[in-house]
Amino acid sequence: MTSPHRPQRWRKLDSRTVAHTRIFDVESVDFQHPDHAAPRDFFVINPPDWVNVVALTPQEELVLVRQFRFGTNDLSLETPGGVVDAGEDPLVTGVRELREETGFVGTAARVLAVVHPNPAIQSNRCHIVFVEGAVPSAALAWDPNEEFEILVVPVAEALARAQRGEITHALALNALFYFLPEWEKRCAARGRA
Amino acid sequence: MTSPHRPQRWRKLDSRTVAHTRIFDVESVDFQHPDHAAPRDFFVINPPDWVNVVALTPQEELVLVRQFRFGTNDLSLETPGGVVDAGEDPLVTGVRELREETGFVGTAARVLAVVHPNPAIQSNRCHIVFVEGAVPSAALAWDPNEEFEILVVPVAEALARAQRGEITHALALNALFYFLPEWEKRCAARGRA
Repeated sequence: MTSPHRPQRWRKLDSRTVAHTRIFDVESVDFQHPDHAAPRDFFVINPPDWVNVVALTPQEELVLVRQFRFGTNDLSLETPGGVVDAGEDPLVTGVRELREETGFVGTAARVLAVVHPNPAIQSNRCHIVFVEGAVPSAALAWDPNEEFEILVVPVAEALARAQRGEITHALALNALFYFLPEWEKRCAARGRA
Repeated sequence: MTSPHRPQRWRKLDSRTVAHTRIFDVESVDFQHPDHAAPRDFFVINPPDWVNVVALTPQEELVLVRQFRFGTNDLSLETPGGVVDAGEDPLVTGVRELREETGFVGTAARVLAVVHPNPAIQSNRCHIVFVEGAVPSAALAWDPNEEFEILVVPVAEALARAQRGEITHALALNALFYFLPEWEKRCAARGRA
């Protein structure tokens, strides 16, 4: 069933930057609905694209990190991830962030999905990168304000922790969601599913 | 396996509001790491809490909405959702937003999970509300700048659309992720799993 109504696209007009920070801009953007008399302004947050990495070890474990997060003022258990540098291929970012944060390096990497962290108020995307054959083989390279606990846990346990509410970062949960079909394929191939 | 390192909590000191919009504030917050000489400021976005609703019909379909999103300047297919009003119970918000956006009303509702849209730069939470027995029985009540296409699709199709990249909103994907165990239980009970 589908309703007959089709929402229209608004047309983007002028915009003004109202705040500028190290990791995002806030813009006031005028949008015009085709049926409305006057445009209206909406606030849009513009960060660079991000990556989140599902790193699978040869023993079928996932590599997770726990770190302090300033937005929630609390520790958070997550998949590794970070910011895509200007001009950088998100796949390269994923491999780089995994290596820098955890020292793990894989044998193959690919993008599983691209999501929007928040289409309502935010313009950027998050690329979900899947790294296979991940083993600890590089030196850690943490930024000055970063420090991590590195956890390597069986896939089933990582998924159970997410379902139990021990992983609450929306984008880390997206990474696990897009890893599920991959995991089911592997389980089926072994006759475990 | 777990690394011996334990990340420390930073202490929140002073903060200043640097931008104020209708739907979020941007704050500059000083945080002090216990081992660092000086505090450092980080930017934090403070929106109210949000809800996202998984609405299941008696025919085992999910109720989805397509709407124009200003952050991405594009149409987006999502689970219904919205902003928790001051003092409102998120469960009440979920039921209200579903009714206002789609006209669907259910027979039971509960919170499946609570996630953080972005622990790194954002303080708020999103409550995933599950509504069962949802049927179209109320009048639509759209806000002035809202209009929706309402789609009612079989659960398996909704999940397939998400995996295919037709649903990209991180929080809508979280809603589907937390609905999965519920769905698997129903499939198992019918001997379909």
